[in-house]
Amino acid sequence: MDDNAPQADHMVASPSVTLLRDRLASGALDASVLVESYIARIEAREADVGAWAWFDADFVRAQAKTLDAQRRAGLPLGRLHGLPVGLKDVIDTLRIPTENGCAGDAGRVPLRDAFIVERLKKEGAILMGKTVTTELAFMHPGKTANPHNLAHTPGGSSQGSAAAVADGMVPLAIGTQTGGSVIRPASFCGVTGYKPTFGAIPRRGVLAQSPTLDTIGVFASDPAGAALLAEVLFGHDIDDPATSLAPAPALHTAAVSKPPLPPVFGFVRPPGWDEHADPQLKEAFNELIAALGDQAFELPLPAVFRSAAEQRKLINFAEMAYHYYPYARDMGDQLGQVTQDAINEGNAVLARDYQSACDMPKVLNAALDELLTRCDALICPSATGPAPRGLEDTGDPIFNGLWTFCGTPCISLPLLTSVEGLPMGVQLIGERGNDARLMRSAQWLFNWADGAPS
Amino acid sequence: MDDNAPQADHMVASPSVTLLRDRLASGALDASVLVESYIARIEAREADVGAWAWFDADFVRAQAKTLDAQRRAGLPLGRLHGLPVGLKDVIDTLRIPTENGCAGDAGRVPLRDAFIVERLKKEGAILMGKTVTTELAFMHPGKTANPHNLAHTPGGSSQGSAAAVADGMVPLAIGTQTGGSVIRPASFCGVTGYKPTFGAIPRRGVLAQSPTLDTIGVFASDPAGAALLAEVLFGHDIDDPATSLAPAPALHTAAVSKPPLPPVFGFVRPPGWDEHADPQLKEAFNELIAALGDQAFELPLPAVFRSAAEQRKLINFAEMAYHYYPYARDMGDQLGQVTQDAINEGNAVLARDYQSACDMPKVLNAALDELLTRCDALICPSATGPAPRGLEDTGDPIFNGLWTFCGTPCISLPLLTSVEGLPMGVQLIGERGNDARLMRSAQWLFNWADGAPS
Repeated sequence: MDDNAPQADHMVASPSVTLLRDRLASGALDASVLVESYIARIEAREADVGAWAWFDADFVRAQAKTLDAQRRAGLPLGRLHGLPVGLKDVIDTLRIPTENGCAGDAGRVPLRDAFIVERLKKEGAILMGKTVTTELAFMHPGKTANPHNLAHTPGGSSQGSAAAVADGMVPLAIGTQTGGSVIRPASFCGVTGYKPTFGAIPRRGVLAQSPTLDTIGVFASDPAGAALLAEVLFGHDIDDPATSLAPAPALHTAAVSKPPLPPVFGFVRPPGWDEHADPQLKEAFNELIAALGDQAFELPLPAVFRSAAEQRKLINFAEMAYHYYPYARDMGDQLGQVTQDAINEGNAVLARDYQSACDMPKVLNAALDELLTRCDALICPSATGPAPRGLEDTGDPIFNGLWTFCGTPCISLPLLTSVEGLPMGVQLIGERGNDARLMRSAQWLFNWADGAPS
Repeated sequence: MDDNAPQADHMVASPSVTLLRDRLASGALDASVLVESYIARIEAREADVGAWAWFDADFVRAQAKTLDAQRRAGLPLGRLHGLPVGLKDVIDTLRIPTENGCAGDAGRVPLRDAFIVERLKKEGAILMGKTVTTELAFMHPGKTANPHNLAHTPGGSSQGSAAAVADGMVPLAIGTQTGGSVIRPASFCGVTGYKPTFGAIPRRGVLAQSPTLDTIGVFASDPAGAALLAEVLFGHDIDDPATSLAPAPALHTAAVSKPPLPPVFGFVRPPGWDEHADPQLKEAFNELIAALGDQAFELPLPAVFRSAAEQRKLINFAEMAYHYYPYARDMGDQLGQVTQDAINEGNAVLARDYQSACDMPKVLNAALDELLTRCDALICPSATGPAPRGLEDTGDPIFNGLWTFCGTPCISLPLLTSVEGLPMGVQLIGERGNDARLMRSAQWLFNWADGAPS
C-alpha cells in the first residue's frame, strides 16, 4: 500500500510506550535519564512547533528524581511509573498555570488538581507540562504548528498534545474532544488519538465547554500506549454525572491480546464524504478497504445521520453560550471571532430545540448498535484529508462530531500518508462501553498495516 | 392540640396497611374478601367523589381469586400480596386504558406495563384501577372532588389517587409529582403522601411531563403504609437515566423502628409563607411547633431559595413544551387553557436560561445539606391552607415545588384540621438518598400526634 509510507523519522524512532513502561518499572531505565531525552527534544524543537503553554524542565527533573528514589527504595510503583504525560491546558493542575488558551485566564493558577491529574500523580506519571489548546478548546487557534510541516495546522483543539507526541517531545498526552478535538489533531499530526466512551473518564477540574459532549481523550504512538494511559483515567466521580460506578476495562491487556478471529470492519461513508473528502483521501481509503479484503465491507449509514452534525452543533453552541457566559461578558470582542460567533448563535437556541437535539443520540445509537452487531468496529477516515496549509484554521471536524454526539469510543490510527507526505488518520468506531474490544481491533489493524504478525 | 382533631370517620376506620399485609400473608384474610369491602365503598361513593378513570370490579375480583389460590397452593407470596393499589392514569398498564386525563388520549391502551406496574404484579399487588389525573398531570382539573367536602378541590394533579385513599376506596395508590402533585392532594385529602428522592423509582412507562422534575410518589393512610408500597418500587432501569444501581432502602423496617433518639425537626418558612399562607394554617403550625418543644426549632432558609420557584417553573414549562409538543400540535385549543399557557411560555424559554435553571439545585442542595446536618428532617406546611372551595382550581403548590426541584424526599402527614373540618398536611423533608431516616422520623411524628407511644 503506497499510502502506508513511513512517518517522519522521529515518529519511527519513538519506542513503544509499553516497552518504556516495562523498562522503567524494572529499573532498566531511570526516569531521570528518560526525561532528559524529551527535555532535549523540547528545547530543540519548541521554538518551531510551539506545543507547550507551560513547561519547566526543572519541575520535570524533580519529579523524575523522586520517582527514581521511590523505585530504588523498593516502594510500590504506580502503573505509569516514570512515564511523562503532556496535559492540554484546559486541565486544572495544582499550583501550575492553567489558562485555557484564553487571554482572560492569563495567570490563572488552580488550587486543586483535576480528577485525572490526581490519578496521574497516584500512578507515578511525570507531568511534563501543559500543552497548547485553541482558545477555550474551541476553534480559534493557538500557536502550535504541525511537526510534519510547520506551515500546516496541527488541527484543534488539542493541538499541543497531538503535536508534542508527534514530535517526540513526550510519549503520552491528554486532550479533550467536544466535536473532533482529539481525533482530528491525531490524524493531522500522525499519532494515535483515542476518545473513550462518553462518561468513561471523569471531567472534574477540566474546562466545561459542552458537558453533554465534552470527552477526555489521549494521544500516544500506538493503540497499546493510548490504552495504558487511558485505563488508569477511567473511573467514577460524584462531581461528573456522566460517569458511573463500573469496573474499568483492562484496555492495555485487550490491546496486546490477539483477537480470537481476525477483526472485521464496517466501512461507513459519514455525511459530508461526497462534498468534503479530499480525492486523495478517498483513493487511499478505498485502497485500504481493498487491502483488507474479506475483513472489510461497506455499511450504509441510515438517513437519520444526515442531520446529526447540525444537532450536535446546536447543543455545543447552546452549552458554550451558558458555560462561557463569563468570558463573553468580560472579554467581548477580545475573544476570537469564531468563539464569539458560536456563543452568539448559542444564545439564541430555544430550550425546546435543545432538548430535541439532546434526545437524538438515542435514535442514532439504536441504528449504530445494530450496525455494530455486524462487525468488530466501524471504519472511516479521521478527517477529510491531510492537515490544511495555514495555522489560522484548525480544519474540518465533519467526520468526528457524529461519534462524539453518539458517545461511541473511537480511535485514530496514523496509517495513511498524503502525496505531500502529511499523515492521514484511519478512524475506528466501537460500541459504547466496549472500549476494550475497540482497542484490540485497533492494535490488530495497526500491526497489520505495519506488516507485523497479527 | 385542637388542630389534631379526628379525621372524617372513614379515615379513622381504615386499618393500617401493615396490619392488612400481615393478615393477607398469613391467610387470616382472603384477598377476595378484602376487595369486596373496597368495591362496595367505590360503588357507594364514586358518583360523588369521582376518583376513578377506569375501574372494573370483576377485574379486581379475578386478581384477588388468583392470588388467594396461589397462597392456598403454598406458592411464594409477593411483598404486597393481596393489597389493592390505585394507579394514577398517567401510568401505562398493559391492555388497560391509560388516557393521561387528556381527550387526545381517549381510547389509548398501552401494549406494555410501566416499570412500576411490572413490580406491582411481581409482588402480588392487586391493580384496583386507574385514578383520575388532571389533564396531562398539569393543572387543568379532572372530575375528582374532595371526599371531606365535595365542594372543595382534592388538589392535583394526582387527585384521584389521593381522594380514593382518603375515601377508603383503596388502601394504597400511586401518583406523580412535578411541582406539588403528590404532597398537595395528600394534604387536601388528609392522607399520607410520600415523594421519594428524585430518581429512586424508575419512570419508564409513565407520562413524561418534565423529566428533570417528574417523580413517582405514593399515598397511604400512614407513613408505614407508604413505605411498604414505595420500597418495592425503588429500583434501577436502564431506560430512566435518573435511576442508579443502588440497593433499595428498607423503608418499612425503618418506618416501624423506634428512633435511637427522639427526632428533631427544623422548622422552615418556605418562600411565600408571609403572603400566601392561610392565617389559620400559620396558627395551627405554630401550635404544632410549640407542642414539639425542644424537638423543633426554626431554621432560616438562605436567600437563594427565593428564586427557586421561578427557576423550577422555567424548567417545567420548557420541558412540557418539548414533551407535549404532539398534544399542542394535534389538540390546540382543545387543551385546557392553563396547559396551553404553560406550553406557550415553555416554547419561548432559551436554552441558556434552561441550563442555568437546571444547575440551580446544586446550590440549593449545598445549603439544604448543611441545614439537614442540624436536624432529622425539615418541617413545613404541605400547602398554604386547607383545600380551597371549588373544583376548577387545584390549589397553590408554592410549598412543594422547591423540594421537587431539589430532589429531596418529602412526606405529607395528615396532622392538622381547619376550622371547617378540612385536613391540612404537615410536610417533612429529608436528605436526598436518606429516605429511610425520613420515614422513621415521619412515623414517629405520626404516632406522637396520634398520642401513641413513640
